[in-house]
Amino acid sequence: MSSIITLTTDFGLTGAYVASMKGVIQSINPEAVVVDICNTISPQDITQAAFILGTASQYFPKGTVHLVVVDPGVGSERRAIVLRTESADFVAPDNGVLSYVIKQSSIGPDDANQQSKMAPGLKAFAITNPRYWRNPVSPTFHGRDIFAPVSAHLSLGHSPAYFGEEITSLETLKTLQLPRPHRESSGSIIGHILHIDSFGNLITDVPAQNLPNEDSPLHIQVGSYTIHGLTRTYAEGEGLLALVGSSDRLEISVKGGNAHNFLNARIGDEVRISLQQ
Amino acid sequence: MSSIITLTTDFGLTGAYVASMKGVIQSINPEAVVVDICNTISPQDITQAAFILGTASQYFPKGTVHLVVVDPGVGSERRAIVLRTESADFVAPDNGVLSYVIKQSSIGPDDANQQSKMAPGLKAFAITNPRYWRNPVSPTFHGRDIFAPVSAHLSLGHSPAYFGEEITSLETLKTLQLPRPHRESSGSIIGHILHIDSFGNLITDVPAQNLPNEDSPLHIQVGSYTIHGLTRTYAEGEGLLALVGSSDRLEISVKGGNAHNFLNARIGDEVRISLQQ
Amino acid sequence: MSSIITLTTDFGLTGAYVASMKGVIQSINPEAVVVDICNTISPQDITQAAFILGTASQYFPKGTVHLVVVDPGVGSERRAIVLRTESADFVAPDNGVLSYVIKQSSIGPDDANQQSKMAPGLKAFAITNPRYWRNPVSPTFHGRDIFAPVSAHLSLGHSPAYFGEEITSLETLKTLQLPRPHRESSGSIIGHILHIDSFGNLITDVPAQNLPNEDSPLHIQVGSYTIHGLTRTYAEGEGLLALVGSSDRLEISVKGGNAHNFLNARIGDEVRISLQQ
Repeated sequence: MSSIITLTTDFGLTGAYVASMKGVIQSINPEAVVVDICNTISPQDITQAAFILGTASQYFPKGTVHLVVVDPGVGSERRAIVLRTESADFVAPDNGVLSYVIKQSSIGPDDANQQSKMAPGLKAFAITNPRYWRNPVSPTFHGRDIFAPVSAHLSLGHSPAYFGEEITSLETLKTLQLPRPHRESSGSIIGHILHIDSFGNLITDVPAQNLPNEDSPLHIQVGSYTIHGLTRTYAEGEGLLALVGSSDRLEISVKGGNAHNFLNARIGDEVRISLQQ
Repeated sequence: MSSIITLTTDFGLTGAYVASMKGVIQSINPEAVVVDICNTISPQDITQAAFILGTASQYFPKGTVHLVVVDPGVGSERRAIVLRTESADFVAPDNGVLSYVIKQSSIGPDDANQQSKMAPGLKAFAITNPRYWRNPVSPTFHGRDIFAPVSAHLSLGHSPAYFGEEITSLETLKTLQLPRPHRESSGSIIGHILHIDSFGNLITDVPAQNLPNEDSPLHIQVGSYTIHGLTRTYAEGEGLLALVGSSDRLEISVKGGNAHNFLNARIGDEVRISLQQ
Repeated sequence: MSSIITLTTDFGLTGAYVASMKGVIQSINPEAVVVDICNTISPQDITQAAFILGTASQYFPKGTVHLVVVDPGVGSERRAIVLRTESADFVAPDNGVLSYVIKQSSIGPDDANQQSKMAPGLKAFAITNPRYWRNPVSPTFHGRDIFAPVSAHLSLGHSPAYFGEEITSLETLKTLQLPRPHRESSGSIIGHILHIDSFGNLITDVPAQNLPNEDSPLHIQVGSYTIHGLTRTYAEGEGLLALVGSSDRLEISVKGGNAHNFLNARIGDEVRISLQQ
């Protein structure tokens, strides 16, 4: 049984908030291995946190507890939940930050318009039992007083049912309207920029499986530029590149540069993929 | 016995200094669990480090060793100390960075002018015994060559007396002149901004226990603004808010925004709390 | 046997890349202790990474595995290697990032022009055996799919020969042309700025052993300034200082300030040390 607890927060690097949570965790489970996924989420940016958590959490061992505190509604009526998936537990506000974990967003090779589906084997629990919380609870820092102790107790092997009632209607869990690619009648795929990484690479919502095979004369339009064909790595070609990135999605890059700055691109911007004969 | 060692430094994120200390610690105590409290203290900002350390250290398990290197006087005549409190050990330069640990700064409900008192059960030791240091000692990096090995040996259970003579006159320990609220003859409380967190929230030196109860018509003046009444969370009300924050002090916030930027506020700025009938 | 794995990358703090590697490592070796050396290397800055890794790695226990991903050529023909030294293993692209580990750069007291020599006891192996890789391997993220699993298996005690053929011609390992001081016929030493630390201190390539002893009337010229004599610590003197820093090299500093900003200095700039009678 893994006792890894990961942290994803918008608390930044300078301050006592992240360390306070780590202290609370270590006080309850001295064997817990605490791993930072990311504590520099832009303040209250649930969409960014959802993407980073959804990506990184896939690589952790079975049984990992993922603690998420990007929580603009802290202390208000928003629910706090434990979400148990087939491989991990997530402790988070019910505000959409678990969207990529709850929904499996993918499009099949013949249909770019398929809807995202609920991931299989999910169970969710409302965190309502104060027995495992710090006392008193600060209305402004549930991360320290509720999420951290719940995560630490989960990592000790406690059932998620200890922390509150099961939420049987999973469709009430809040999820973000994630951008999804669609296919036009012309056959072109319209995708969107989903995430911008630390190198300025633009990760789109177009899965590799929706792209024609590499031999086809593919054209990718982004901003006022058209990229012809895919490269396999960041080191090939020159200037603006398109390739399948490490999350198995179409990605736009600039060789030795920063596509984000070069294109002045923003999350949500359209990318058009067409196959011209 | 916990073998957690925390780090609080102004070494920043880009460089070899923090990792060098971690290597030294792990070489001496391979079982030590090293936790970063904060390595992005502004260069030589003892006041900021003191606040962050004083806040975060409260949440760590008994026996934790807190290693602090914000040390503009490194290599000069400033003392290096081990401070043992009822719950933890602190290894630091004697330059005021332990002020919140040494002094318990609080004001009673009837007297906002009470002086801060020495925390109970303190013992301090001058670090003078070179036996546990790296050899040679760099005059510019005691963090790596003195503080790290002393902390690692402390975490192995060595008595603090191993590292040097006890300092029996605790009043010789250097402490900062921390701002403290005072009560005017009108009954108003004059507090100060003590810390600005990563969201731009302004944490004041006014403890919650000094505030009138929530039903009273409280007025909080900060800069050219007056806030009427307290909210319970960051999610209530609109615009500029006042509330009791997670360190149990009065805090100024902007809903969905950044009070630091909005008010152009600085540490030390006054906040006036009055109760008008 | 240590099971420490350190990370040195240019992945930055905001994103899923570093955490994905940590998840992969913990999935293979749950006992591994993962320590960040630095994840904020400037994008693709092999020279900076080489210096920071070369400095910090010296302080880790014998048997540590140092994983390095500053890899602009990922997916191209550049080699990936395991380098075994007398004290540690390094898993990295063969692009010069191990220069300070491969070459021992030092100059003797009588000869500032000595060439750097290969460190003793090195063994290198090309990483070519896919058995220990993730499958499939993303051509854009060998850090996650090759370097992380190889490092984790190394930390479990696997021989480096498991991962590929030994590279018997060590001179084929790529190393950077590192700046080196030289001595002029006048006796003056011309050094260079090798690294700028987080305080703005300028670390030069001039080893302490090449400096005349402290009683000599030493003059250090940097930009349009001349510094007379060395101080022992950052806290002595006023303004611009020269001293022997913690990596045992000549360093330029500004008391209570930032030499980098003050001098508008850049890596590679010359520093002239002369002894005038």
